[in-house]
Amino acid sequence: MSFTPPVTEQRFVLRHIAGIDFLADSERFAEATPDMVDAILEGAGQLAAGEWAPLNRVGDETGAKLTENGVVMPAGFKEAYRAYVEGGWGTITAPVEFGGQGLPFTLAIAILESLGSANMAFTLCPILSVGAIESLIHHGSEELQDAYLPKLSTGAWTGTMNLTEPQAGSDVGALKTRAEPAEDGSWRIKGQKIFITFGEHDMADNIVHLVLARTPGSPEGTRGISLFLVPRYRLDAHGNPGEPNDARCVSLEHKLGIHASPTCVMSYGDNDDCHGWLIGPENGGMRAMFTMMNNARLNVGLQGVQIAERATQQAVAFAKERVQSARAGAASRDPVAIIEHPDVRRMLLRMKALTMAVRALVYSAAGQVDAATLGDEDAKARSEMLTPLAKAYGTDIGCEVASLGVQVHGGMGYIEETGAAQHYRDARIAPIYEGTNGIQAADLVGRKLALNGGAAMRSLLDDIAAGAQDEPALAALLADCEAVVLWLGEASVDDRLAASYPFLTMLSVATAGWLMAQQRMIAEAELAAGEGDSDFLAMKIAACRFYLDQIVPEAGGLRAAAMAPADILYSVSEDALSA
Amino acid sequence: MSFTPPVTEQRFVLRHIAGIDFLADSERFAEATPDMVDAILEGAGQLAAGEWAPLNRVGDETGAKLTENGVVMPAGFKEAYRAYVEGGWGTITAPVEFGGQGLPFTLAIAILESLGSANMAFTLCPILSVGAIESLIHHGSEELQDAYLPKLSTGAWTGTMNLTEPQAGSDVGALKTRAEPAEDGSWRIKGQKIFITFGEHDMADNIVHLVLARTPGSPEGTRGISLFLVPRYRLDAHGNPGEPNDARCVSLEHKLGIHASPTCVMSYGDNDDCHGWLIGPENGGMRAMFTMMNNARLNVGLQGVQIAERATQQAVAFAKERVQSARAGAASRDPVAIIEHPDVRRMLLRMKALTMAVRALVYSAAGQVDAATLGDEDAKARSEMLTPLAKAYGTDIGCEVASLGVQVHGGMGYIEETGAAQHYRDARIAPIYEGTNGIQAADLVGRKLALNGGAAMRSLLDDIAAGAQDEPALAALLADCEAVVLWLGEASVDDRLAASYPFLTMLSVATAGWLMAQQRMIAEAELAAGEGDSDFLAMKIAACRFYLDQIVPEAGGLRAAAMAPADILYSVSEDALSA
Repeated sequence: MSFTPPVTEQRFVLRHIAGIDFLADSERFAEATPDMVDAILEGAGQLAAGEWAPLNRVGDETGAKLTENGVVMPAGFKEAYRAYVEGGWGTITAPVEFGGQGLPFTLAIAILESLGSANMAFTLCPILSVGAIESLIHHGSEELQDAYLPKLSTGAWTGTMNLTEPQAGSDVGALKTRAEPAEDGSWRIKGQKIFITFGEHDMADNIVHLVLARTPGSPEGTRGISLFLVPRYRLDAHGNPGEPNDARCVSLEHKLGIHASPTCVMSYGDNDDCHGWLIGPENGGMRAMFTMMNNARLNVGLQGVQIAERATQQAVAFAKERVQSARAGAASRDPVAIIEHPDVRRMLLRMKALTMAVRALVYSAAGQVDAATLGDEDAKARSEMLTPLAKAYGTDIGCEVASLGVQVHGGMGYIEETGAAQHYRDARIAPIYEGTNGIQAADLVGRKLALNGGAAMRSLLDDIAAGAQDEPALAALLADCEAVVLWLGEASVDDRLAASYPFLTMLSVATAGWLMAQQRMIAEAELAAGEGDSDFLAMKIAACRFYLDQIVPEAGGLRAAAMAPADILYSVSEDALSA
Repeated sequence: MSFTPPVTEQRFVLRHIAGIDFLADSERFAEATPDMVDAILEGAGQLAAGEWAPLNRVGDETGAKLTENGVVMPAGFKEAYRAYVEGGWGTITAPVEFGGQGLPFTLAIAILESLGSANMAFTLCPILSVGAIESLIHHGSEELQDAYLPKLSTGAWTGTMNLTEPQAGSDVGALKTRAEPAEDGSWRIKGQKIFITFGEHDMADNIVHLVLARTPGSPEGTRGISLFLVPRYRLDAHGNPGEPNDARCVSLEHKLGIHASPTCVMSYGDNDDCHGWLIGPENGGMRAMFTMMNNARLNVGLQGVQIAERATQQAVAFAKERVQSARAGAASRDPVAIIEHPDVRRMLLRMKALTMAVRALVYSAAGQVDAATLGDEDAKARSEMLTPLAKAYGTDIGCEVASLGVQVHGGMGYIEETGAAQHYRDARIAPIYEGTNGIQAADLVGRKLALNGGAAMRSLLDDIAAGAQDEPALAALLADCEAVVLWLGEASVDDRLAASYPFLTMLSVATAGWLMAQQRMIAEAELAAGEGDSDFLAMKIAACRFYLDQIVPEAGGLRAAAMAPADILYSVSEDALSA
């Protein structure tokens, strides 16, 4: 199935939602001119469509394999990854002093969107490297930065994040991996980590593991965790990969999807010779980890956009080709392409509208991240507020759209060769990793609701209100959100958490609805002025109308659940739940 | 993962929702005494838990294989199927004169529920046989009945349904398989069929294919279709399987799930020697097909119940065992089983509530099928009204619950060995086959809305109204449904179809809500009277409350979509949809 990068749409959203022109007005991001943006969108789109997309099926069918020589990627991945490195696609956001281009994060989001739509599993490799780069920039010593950042920035070396241990799951504070100081100032790491994405592969000369571990005498829980850099190959005197470190992949998980992404069980220090270097202060691992994870959550929210875009393209193409049954009520009894049947068209328009909505949400959050980099404190708060929405709602929508994609294909959708089922399987990981969506919801009603004494939430609701003036459904949903916010303010911890997920969905839809209302106005104005691509603008307007008129009201239906006390949940014993 | 048949719940729903006692008061179903019902539920549950459930993983991992000797099932299936046949589980509903037990269809539903929760893919084999039996009973000649029904009734031989052809998909009228009359009164069949469930396997001595085909000179479209019986082995003079017929499986589909169910491409008459026998009159195939399909739709709706039950049991068991993180707001900082966390508990209660709701819906429809068999015309109309709801909503909920099951498991849910992912994959076929859910929605706003001049719909809405008197959320949803029904009555064909799916969901939830309200009252009365299992009743009451207070209001959010005209769908060109 071919893939066409949605360049016109990306440009529209970068400009009108992420505020790329505003960012380019700053000294720091002055390079992000419209011409540069166009060149990046086109170039990344070409790499995605031409080299990454064709590998999506083989990646799924063959998958990464653990062999005697370590983890081996399916044929073609090594070359496609090299094209990514040589094209400089990894260096977009990296600092100029380490060989990066210093461009806005928002542009990296656009690039990753195209690459991930082409091949979601593959794109996890660069995504993980970003986390390692961010941690080193913010918390690494000058020595470590000089030694590792240039190679990580280009993607010549890749990065991993090592949080999870078998017994701990999402409870990072329960981890047990140990780090003992060595005489040379480095540390010796020992322990096992699971769910390590691209923990090993054959596409790069070195892999830089970021590993959370406990130092001797550290306090219990999350306050006693430190972050270490553990290279697969230790660096020689010239800074090149030298001796193998005592760090290896001992098995790969057999997963529902993203088969081209090796999910490794990593073992560190089996021979007591795993060298690691501290990043940031001892016991400062949680802070470094949050640096590593924050943008990662947006990148995972983006995976929802990626898969939604790809699934939609595939469903539209199928529906245009597949001829079946006459159209009900039509004069002609000749069979028509199924895209003409109202319910199929409803599914397709829903897919388009949902995809655009989550793209706007993620790009908006990314734009705020960049504005925060420029020193805007309100933007910083807004980016933090939007992160759990983008992660959870974005990935839920990825799953819904992929499922609709299967449905549009009918029986063919259930056959693996069609490819629709792969999207459905791939999409399902995103609500789970980088903090389950339930954890995002807890973050929203906990930390984010209280952010800046509630001012961050107030500001978002006020912005939505301004956009809802001519949109009655959005205004109604906003009123529901306001009611829930009031209720949450006085609710017990249990009540707040029981309500968290429905509220997260409501607020996400209201926020996306506000962004869709903005886009509708802009598209209508452009169309009236005879500017832009009229097919694109007509589609944009229809998708925004559909979202505002049909999807926004659905979310209002969650108000009762978002204000239901938790007592019902605890009215039955745990044994009764198995009864 | 072990499986516990939900016998207490099944008994409750059979009695209070399906009306099994009322059915047993009739002469025809007098055998269905409470003791007999208990014995059947317990016995089927034992077979399901003891012999079918342990094969669910191997069925998924190994799957059915096409070999030189035809299709071979994974190890253990042949023996487990024999246990099913020898236990007499196939004969429940079959007529007494053909070796059946003549018991209500509702009991067959309960049996199939347990078997399908244990092993959904496997259970497709008996489900398909039911269609063949029904067609023969209603349309077969005495000769064909005598020759085939006794063996089909016990399950010693199995049946298949052959509708779909590659070019035709859901458009049965476009099929091209031909039947030419032979001198001996039989027919020679030639053509290819796809998506034939259990089209070949090694568990039975014969397979009885029911094949739709066109006879010479037949009219175009659905009016020119006839139904033929095509045995895998032709019967010898003693009625035993003899010479192989020219009918074979030429390939198996590689599917997202239900791997233990061989989905065959069947080729008939490659050597011009495929013998078939007409069932019913020439060109009467559509009528016979609807006989074959009607209860099949309920059986597929039941698959949603099956997978929801299994996924819920597995998620509850995992959440009770998995210890992770302290409970927010609790004095103790010790980690707890995740079942104690509010959002996990919300997911589990939602799974329980949704599962109970769709079970009630499917069992209610089945009870009406049996009442119709007793001659109740209103029950017949009601069963027809409920069929698209049970099929579409039941299977959508199967997918939702299976997805929640994955989520409760966190990262482990994405690992195939856990088993949660299998349910997610298996469940996804059910909204597609036996008429896609979109086709069910079209049936609802077309044929069913107009059934008996609208009286069938009126009667359902009136029943819901009676049940909604003390349930404000249900009353509100009913008002929404009433508004949509009024609107649909004056809507264009396009508008009606564009609204069909959201309306189907609303009406399904309202109907299930009514059935949940009934169950809540009964459970509260039993609990107050000190009757029954108090854990079970507490769970029932909590699930009903959750459904009525939190899920019913969600469906009200669909009102806008169910009353949105189709124009928005056609406001963009097909090319713009790909823009």
